[in-house]
Amino acid sequence: MSQIDLDPNSDVPLYKQLAESVRTLVDRGAIERGERLPATRELAGLLGLNRTTVSAAYAMLEQSGLLEGHVGRGSFIAKSDRPLALTSLAARSIDWEHLLPPLESLSVPARKISISFASSCPAGEAFPLAEFRRLSKEVIDSPEAAQILQLGSPHGYPPLRRYLLENALAAGMVLPGDDLIVTNGCQQALDLIARLFFNGNGRGVVIEDPVYRGVVRVFARAGATVLSVPLDESGIDLNALQELIHQHRPRLLVVTPSFQNPTGATLPLERRKRLVDLAQRHGLVLVENDICSELRYEGKSLPTLKQLDESGSTILLRSYSKISFPGLRVGWAIAPRPVIARMAEAKQTSDLHSDQLSQAVLLRFAESGELARHLDLTRRVGAERLSSILRCCARYLPAGSRFTRPEGGMSLWVDLPAPFTAETLLSRVEQRGVDFLPGNFFSVQRSHPRALRLSFGGLSPDQISRGMQILGEAAASEPAAALEPVAASV
Amino acid sequence: MSQIDLDPNSDVPLYKQLAESVRTLVDRGAIERGERLPATRELAGLLGLNRTTVSAAYAMLEQSGLLEGHVGRGSFIAKSDRPLALTSLAARSIDWEHLLPPLESLSVPARKISISFASSCPAGEAFPLAEFRRLSKEVIDSPEAAQILQLGSPHGYPPLRRYLLENALAAGMVLPGDDLIVTNGCQQALDLIARLFFNGNGRGVVIEDPVYRGVVRVFARAGATVLSVPLDESGIDLNALQELIHQHRPRLLVVTPSFQNPTGATLPLERRKRLVDLAQRHGLVLVENDICSELRYEGKSLPTLKQLDESGSTILLRSYSKISFPGLRVGWAIAPRPVIARMAEAKQTSDLHSDQLSQAVLLRFAESGELARHLDLTRRVGAERLSSILRCCARYLPAGSRFTRPEGGMSLWVDLPAPFTAETLLSRVEQRGVDFLPGNFFSVQRSHPRALRLSFGGLSPDQISRGMQILGEAAASEPAAALEPVAASV
Repeated sequence: MSQIDLDPNSDVPLYKQLAESVRTLVDRGAIERGERLPATRELAGLLGLNRTTVSAAYAMLEQSGLLEGHVGRGSFIAKSDRPLALTSLAARSIDWEHLLPPLESLSVPARKISISFASSCPAGEAFPLAEFRRLSKEVIDSPEAAQILQLGSPHGYPPLRRYLLENALAAGMVLPGDDLIVTNGCQQALDLIARLFFNGNGRGVVIEDPVYRGVVRVFARAGATVLSVPLDESGIDLNALQELIHQHRPRLLVVTPSFQNPTGATLPLERRKRLVDLAQRHGLVLVENDICSELRYEGKSLPTLKQLDESGSTILLRSYSKISFPGLRVGWAIAPRPVIARMAEAKQTSDLHSDQLSQAVLLRFAESGELARHLDLTRRVGAERLSSILRCCARYLPAGSRFTRPEGGMSLWVDLPAPFTAETLLSRVEQRGVDFLPGNFFSVQRSHPRALRLSFGGLSPDQISRGMQILGEAAASEPAAALEPVAASV
Repeated sequence: MSQIDLDPNSDVPLYKQLAESVRTLVDRGAIERGERLPATRELAGLLGLNRTTVSAAYAMLEQSGLLEGHVGRGSFIAKSDRPLALTSLAARSIDWEHLLPPLESLSVPARKISISFASSCPAGEAFPLAEFRRLSKEVIDSPEAAQILQLGSPHGYPPLRRYLLENALAAGMVLPGDDLIVTNGCQQALDLIARLFFNGNGRGVVIEDPVYRGVVRVFARAGATVLSVPLDESGIDLNALQELIHQHRPRLLVVTPSFQNPTGATLPLERRKRLVDLAQRHGLVLVENDICSELRYEGKSLPTLKQLDESGSTILLRSYSKISFPGLRVGWAIAPRPVIARMAEAKQTSDLHSDQLSQAVLLRFAESGELARHLDLTRRVGAERLSSILRCCARYLPAGSRFTRPEGGMSLWVDLPAPFTAETLLSRVEQRGVDFLPGNFFSVQRSHPRALRLSFGGLSPDQISRGMQILGEAAASEPAAALEPVAASV
């Protein structure tokens, strides 16, 4: 077994590497058919592996028919390969592909990407790791640790919930009779709301088009009729919305007033007021996705719909994910108590409650002032990145391109002139290590073949500049290929 | 404002206490109508409070109409109480109670309970806090911390997923073509499965009766037709199951083969084999809820259904919650890849992915051997508690009572003789600081008016003994009241 050479840094688990190595050695004849393999403990010692890893590899080989275990005697390479289909697959009585709904095929980039305009997450190196470490340890050493480890409430970890409520109240985001629930990020809040208001009843929800896929999916899954309104740089088109309201009497509107994903569009104050008024007059529930409004790099901050809405028709969704650590899943919703009570009931049935360790750590992060300090830094860094990408858009995009000019957030939206399409441009730049998400990835009912989203939040000005230059060169070199018609992919 | 006295240990948030104190002082005339209150910063200093707390209290008082803010001049007690309904409630255009599904009223114990047989969680003082602290800090200080804080995969934190797969493979719980997904505890796995297999299509799911409510709810919400089979001390009745299969062709069976909640029942090996065979022959998917099998205090451990099932019809659900820290929400499911792929897709739409900090901490806890050490201790402690409650059942329960004799887990099930009912017994013992969950709390289609669940996992032998004595005394003193007929409450 001395020829076995495993790579602990590989993505392939060690047990699989080991099993494959054994199979290769058998195929090459380096291990003979019928030969006895060392005991798991012995081989683990020889290779410097955990015994569990060796056991797992042996189990895998046994299941595949290459290895045979004999109680008290050890494990032997089978004299001949067992016909696998007969022993383990013939007994399979369930045709899963037939039984289950079809799987949406997700396009996975095959190429190595070094500058990605596709990810709308902060860059890992910008995390305030030292502060996270210090404050997490404070939480872990605190007397509350035992409480954190015990079963919690579907409404959230009580000290965090209290803190969030007090802050929202002080900011004028809480009406009398409002309440708050902690969720696993904003996505779970949308899921709970979708279940509450639709649950297969076919009523309508209005969403923005384009919008990020999680919104479309969560309402489609809940059985809502998904309607959509177009956006311009100042957010959703209120005349189109009014038309939809008259025609379909939808129950809910999901809207991102600040730095919308993917367009970066922001509703000005007047449109916010008109929207709140419209919702109020028609009994339309507003779901305000407000996870990015604190990432404003320039211009004046605007009140949330929740602050403008005195009628209590707005459900406000916020989250720590985009402004601190995306891997810790903590968001929250503020809404009238009857809504929150039912969201809590739905949450209990979904997963009992959100993880308490992360809730406690993020509470400490916010209370200590470190979150505010981190936000300041993020805004300074974000401002540089924003001005860099705006500069590069003007310089490198083909003549006739249009792009949004957000004052914050993570992304902007580009419309290429005909005959360019985002898909052909993407296939070109991928070859040079650059990617982005084409507009049709965000389509609801309209097709956006010439559009693309450029996310700049996780890239340095230098990366932005190099990436945009490659994008510009690819566009300049490929007008002919781009002429081919491309069908909308969503 | 010197009369204000707040209690930082109260459940009532400080801002609410402060707002209520101000209102009381106004009512008593200690603060006059029209009087100016100190600025928030000033009052915060005076009372040793956070300024946010004072701002929140002022905002609350302002919304309730007691306080009026005048820009540049400060906050004044209103000359007279504003008619609240006119200003903030009349604008409310949405009747939430009418719009939303009814809320299930949950019975909240009003009394102070000192010995609770109602909670099936480990006692907090049994947590290995020192080890948790040490290992969490290792994780936090590790170079992986940055990765943990970044957006993760819907399948789970890769190193944990790898670890769980290798261990399951070594234990013979993985078939070729199986895969694994990390979920927020076992409850979320059930939710994802319910959405996948039902989603409003009305097909049947078979569950145990009695069973804990989370199972009933999750499948009812998904629009499944909920069917149930009765249990005896050896688990579900396979003849009744066979009958159901012939009549209804259900799609799924959810079963807890070891230490079922609430009965503590365990399926013997022969019944497990028959069940797997039955499922295989009828194309029934088995969902094996296996969160407690490692809490075996006596007797021989039994193979899981997953280990017995070579046909790949079983979805195995496990979790760290019951065997380590319930507040960290980490469970997992092992099943054929087409099932796991769709669960991951559904999970992404539900909440993107599970919290990564807890996943990393529990991985370290397991890898380091501390989980195994903790389990050993839990089993020793559990064995004492089990024998204590069995002894007390024999000694204190009224003559004619029957109770299950589990060999592990957290709970056992008692059937009182007529004319006793669990509800009347509960109302008696609550007065003396003892509670439990009555059998009907776990009802699916059958009524269990004389049954109760006694959870002993979080109680010391001394608490068990005192609690059971009170239960026995209450039963002895109340045969007359118990004669009243009590309708099944579920």
